[in-house]
Amino acid sequence: MNGSVARAEARGDGAAGTALGLARQRYRREDAPIPFAWNDTFETILSHRSVRAYLPDPLPEGTIETLVAAAQSASTSSNLQLWSVVAVEDAARKARLAALAGGQKHIVQAPLLLVWLVDLARIGTIAQERGSAAEGLTYLESFVVGAVDVSLAAQNAVIALESLGLGCVYIGAMRNKPVEVAKELGLPPNVMALFGLVVGYPDPAVPGGIKPRLPQEAVLHREQYTWGPAQSAAVESYNARLRGFQAEQKMPLQDWTELVLNRVRNAPTLSGRDKLREALTTLGFGLK
Amino acid sequence: MNGSVARAEARGDGAAGTALGLARQRYRREDAPIPFAWNDTFETILSHRSVRAYLPDPLPEGTIETLVAAAQSASTSSNLQLWSVVAVEDAARKARLAALAGGQKHIVQAPLLLVWLVDLARIGTIAQERGSAAEGLTYLESFVVGAVDVSLAAQNAVIALESLGLGCVYIGAMRNKPVEVAKELGLPPNVMALFGLVVGYPDPAVPGGIKPRLPQEAVLHREQYTWGPAQSAAVESYNARLRGFQAEQKMPLQDWTELVLNRVRNAPTLSGRDKLREALTTLGFGLK
Repeated sequence: MNGSVARAEARGDGAAGTALGLARQRYRREDAPIPFAWNDTFETILSHRSVRAYLPDPLPEGTIETLVAAAQSASTSSNLQLWSVVAVEDAARKARLAALAGGQKHIVQAPLLLVWLVDLARIGTIAQERGSAAEGLTYLESFVVGAVDVSLAAQNAVIALESLGLGCVYIGAMRNKPVEVAKELGLPPNVMALFGLVVGYPDPAVPGGIKPRLPQEAVLHREQYTWGPAQSAAVESYNARLRGFQAEQKMPLQDWTELVLNRVRNAPTLSGRDKLREALTTLGFGLK
Repeated sequence: MNGSVARAEARGDGAAGTALGLARQRYRREDAPIPFAWNDTFETILSHRSVRAYLPDPLPEGTIETLVAAAQSASTSSNLQLWSVVAVEDAARKARLAALAGGQKHIVQAPLLLVWLVDLARIGTIAQERGSAAEGLTYLESFVVGAVDVSLAAQNAVIALESLGLGCVYIGAMRNKPVEVAKELGLPPNVMALFGLVVGYPDPAVPGGIKPRLPQEAVLHREQYTWGPAQSAAVESYNARLRGFQAEQKMPLQDWTELVLNRVRNAPTLSGRDKLREALTTLGFGLK
């Protein structure tokens, strides 16, 4: 444990107590690593939970622009800005997108769905207008740059909205039927919806908890990647910690190892996303 | 402009003034979209700049664990946690990685390089130990999930470290020679370094500015994707705004459109990353 936090805790310092409490929840262990310093931003980050029950309340005026300003403040590879976002507020469109994402009702319930796009079309169009070649866009690397760029951007929006008391949940199922989603959103070739983000006020009647993550021993490596008995033991200990959380949340009890193995067992367990490469080709991506 | 911020500005409210100032710098326009609310977290997010000059000062004890706790607090698809991170502090290893990334001297200068990994090996190993199939990991979808997961995680670390007065810069060039980087870091099959993150104290003798981004008109779409004269005009206006920033920073003057077209013109302009797909195959990824 960090010495200054230990001392702060001993004298009953509130902020350090929050630090300690949140880190212990995140790792579900008494000897959780403790932030060496603390502030409101850390508290927002460590308090994250995915929200799947929302109030119908509308968002304050300017919310979307605010979140996009936060998103655009993230780093972007070589300033290429290979991403865009569609803000969907229309109830009927949200319902259709929810259906395409396997019927996730929180998409309908919350006032806003942000759909985050890998966008190679903006630069492609600029190249076309100027008669310039843009062969680089046809490589897998450009898709990867777009995917990283838009993920960094979206996560900035997440931290921003959570700092204001809003809640959210990512919708990876936006990739279940990428071609249909592209049609619904009027996407041109070389643009794809990487994931959605539902945004709204969390329903206080459905409180959530902080889901524990793998111990740092299983995720953080020093100088070189290491996988040995310490890492295996960390994974094993996580099964019990996650069960503790599941019990508290009245969720079905399931080992993490079982959960993830079920998820990656074969093509059908990917919920249609085993056809992602084919779909990207249909949407115009080169992926060379 | 948001009404409450306008009123706050009229009465000389400091926080709203900061909001306005930062948003105007981010978009380099007087009518920049203004956050509907404001707090320290927003200020951290909007103040982001990439830092390429560092003091040699060591980081406080516990920095790495703190940043990893922030990173692990980000969302992860189906709780799969398909990522890991290697913390590199050894000067010789940093120098070798800097050379593999095209000789970026700030990697050597700063005390810490975090290398963020797409990690399909952890679950692959668990499957092997239990005699379970993990065919899902051989699909492009799993690589994409890992890339999104690790990007969300890294961006949490970025916001956390910036909130504490540290600076950073992403190193996409970690993908220039992915096989050599994997060897240097001792990565097992099905793990790749997606990007690096240099972390340290910014050198105050080399102040940076807030780089303007594309106007929201070019990035934010409502209900459906739209590309028309308004979007083209937004891109054109951005060229002049970026030149203003370049002039202030005494950088070479170059239109954004020219800059990005040079970057994506053909395979050689990708600095070796045109071979990313081949490298991923060498590293064991299925990408089906």
